[in-house]
Amino acid sequence: MTDSSENHPRHPLRSGLSTVQTAVEETGAVGFVHVGGRFDPTRRYLTRVDGPDRETAVVFLAGDANRVPQAVYCVPSEMCTAVSNFEQTAVGGSEIVCRVVGRTPTTATGQQVCAVLNDRLKHPDDRLLLVPRDIPHDTAVFLQQAGYDLQSTAAVTTVRATKAPAERDCLQRVQTAAAEGMARAESVLAASEADTRGLIADGRPLTDDRLRRQMNSALATASVDPADNTSVVSDATESTGHLPVGEPIQLTVAPRGPHGYHGHLTRTLVVDSEGGWERRAFIAVEAGLQAAERTIETGVAVSTVEAESVAEVGAYGFAVAPEPDKPTRGLATAAVHGVGLSTHELPTVGADRQLHSGSVIAVDAGVTHPTHGSVRLGTVFELTTDGTERLVEYPSSLTPVDRHEWRARSKGNSESSTGHLTRG
Amino acid sequence: MTDSSENHPRHPLRSGLSTVQTAVEETGAVGFVHVGGRFDPTRRYLTRVDGPDRETAVVFLAGDANRVPQAVYCVPSEMCTAVSNFEQTAVGGSEIVCRVVGRTPTTATGQQVCAVLNDRLKHPDDRLLLVPRDIPHDTAVFLQQAGYDLQSTAAVTTVRATKAPAERDCLQRVQTAAAEGMARAESVLAASEADTRGLIADGRPLTDDRLRRQMNSALATASVDPADNTSVVSDATESTGHLPVGEPIQLTVAPRGPHGYHGHLTRTLVVDSEGGWERRAFIAVEAGLQAAERTIETGVAVSTVEAESVAEVGAYGFAVAPEPDKPTRGLATAAVHGVGLSTHELPTVGADRQLHSGSVIAVDAGVTHPTHGSVRLGTVFELTTDGTERLVEYPSSLTPVDRHEWRARSKGNSESSTGHLTRG
Repeated sequence: MTDSSENHPRHPLRSGLSTVQTAVEETGAVGFVHVGGRFDPTRRYLTRVDGPDRETAVVFLAGDANRVPQAVYCVPSEMCTAVSNFEQTAVGGSEIVCRVVGRTPTTATGQQVCAVLNDRLKHPDDRLLLVPRDIPHDTAVFLQQAGYDLQSTAAVTTVRATKAPAERDCLQRVQTAAAEGMARAESVLAASEADTRGLIADGRPLTDDRLRRQMNSALATASVDPADNTSVVSDATESTGHLPVGEPIQLTVAPRGPHGYHGHLTRTLVVDSEGGWERRAFIAVEAGLQAAERTIETGVAVSTVEAESVAEVGAYGFAVAPEPDKPTRGLATAAVHGVGLSTHELPTVGADRQLHSGSVIAVDAGVTHPTHGSVRLGTVFELTTDGTERLVEYPSSLTPVDRHEWRARSKGNSESSTGHLTRG
Repeated sequence: MTDSSENHPRHPLRSGLSTVQTAVEETGAVGFVHVGGRFDPTRRYLTRVDGPDRETAVVFLAGDANRVPQAVYCVPSEMCTAVSNFEQTAVGGSEIVCRVVGRTPTTATGQQVCAVLNDRLKHPDDRLLLVPRDIPHDTAVFLQQAGYDLQSTAAVTTVRATKAPAERDCLQRVQTAAAEGMARAESVLAASEADTRGLIADGRPLTDDRLRRQMNSALATASVDPADNTSVVSDATESTGHLPVGEPIQLTVAPRGPHGYHGHLTRTLVVDSEGGWERRAFIAVEAGLQAAERTIETGVAVSTVEAESVAEVGAYGFAVAPEPDKPTRGLATAAVHGVGLSTHELPTVGADRQLHSGSVIAVDAGVTHPTHGSVRLGTVFELTTDGTERLVEYPSSLTPVDRHEWRARSKGNSESSTGHLTRG
């Protein structure tokens, strides 16, 4: 992977504006309004630009016999140049014209949105406007006071659950970077030494914070943002953060790539494991993750994937439901949800949609025990017309392994992992 | 700075719940409701915990003769344990009881909020509820349909503009990390070589992406998240991203620290500068930043700080307003705004509040020219009863300098910047 390829996926990312256009045409609405901040996944999906760290709005105006449909990105005036790429937003095959308009510091987003809408409307009877359920209340009130009837739409949230090939490429790329972060953790743990008080690396105590910094440094070197999603957790960690010997250490990364898509990777590692419990748990959880993988197919509900994973872990002798009155055997857990511009999106258990080609889901299987700790393994699966696959194959092992070799094989990573560049 | 000190500021961070309590008591409201995502700054300010990547709500319930005031953090059920620290939220001197409640996947946030409110209310006349202006519309509608009268409050946004000592410590800490990221960039640029096509580092072309990765790796090593705010921009950069020789390269970092507070640091560097323009611009912009610093005092408006900075840059022969019909001399620019849990918060130009003790503001001064490029310098100032100071003193120079020595002097950074830990 070269420097420049990172920002140029093979397939171009298409805007979700065509989805909005369809929803507007189907309901006979005059348009659609979305308001959100920089990391609002719907904002990103509609504009495909990295927005300013401010409240911005996307206004879609329906076309008619005399006018092509238009999408207007409303931002603070000083940010117009920064988001001007929006005007080149490709909406395959449609005639949607995209433009950016700025507002002064004293204009509220709602005011700006009303001005954009009123400027365009010719028929005073055109009053139906589609909005997401969570549009800011003050903007909604502005619109209602201007005479618009608001109707909630989940069109964008719903369509985001199905990933296009370009989105899948972004997800695979960020998941590859997530694996780089995990490989760094494994390599550090593999090189660490056991001490009576805990793990030692480079002659000093290895703390959760130190390991997390190493992982985040590797993520940054791999061109992704850790997004505050990197965690290093052990139930046996001391208050100093000193990581334990012989006890499970759970590692999670869910970085955000340059296009806003997220990875998700969970591993549990034990340095100098002696206990039988974590080995049994690890084997069960690996089997649980494989059971989930086998279950993922078109027409299956997310809750079924969770249930199958839990049942498989249960088959190894762990409890499949809390047992308040009995000595615990360790409780099987599973968490399944869509991943994309948000770390947690459709399909989810609450909405319980069925999986289908284009679903990309994060699956975590685990066992948790009040004294032994927790063992969890998780990764991202994609369901295509060809079947179910892990987006990235990252090896799983309870004992940390130096993954330099894996990294070199899996990716021609041109950047050395050394912090400082040096003259050649 | 040791590993553990990063997460334990000298002063404890206090929750903004006491502000909410005051607002509720002053208006005679029955309570206050805030709904937001994980990185919503108000959510963080009220709970002081790192929330789940999901929509959550904070419900404040007023006290009366029989009951102490209560704050309820409403989250998806499976996240209750992760945010249980909220129940230890310290609200100095008050009797606010904090607790966490979970909701099932099929319950909307608005439903959960209504249930929490209704459970508590004894008097059907208690209907006035304070909410932020941008509460999600569906939650507002839920509340209105349940009979509540909503009144918008800016109490939390307003109080966030004044930083307590503990917040100032967090800001200084993340700004120190921001300087680490900048120092890395300077060191890489200082070690780079000029080629006819652009800069060369470590025998390979130095691209914007490569330099950004180096900066982000340094930020991660310094325990902060780059937050997708690191930028490397040169008007002379080729489409390959190859950074130019003899042309200004603008560098910006605005990382997020472990408590959610942001840094802000901007520098402009030129390798092998030959031109007089960027040297003149650099001197003018340095003077502009100093003029801003001198202007910052209690009672002064943010717009005045911007105006003084622009006027000072103008005194060096640059234009203070666009000159559409004339050959440009280069236009002076300035941007001033509060920084804290958000990268851009009060005091800002639009709200144009006056500065006062406790204000922490990011100031960028600059000159931009259609052919020579742009020169910008920016940092964070704090205004205390003792006067105005840069939160962190980071040297500014147009020519990149190897900052290893500065870094070693300014901070006993215990983690080596080498990517991998090695055995001692």
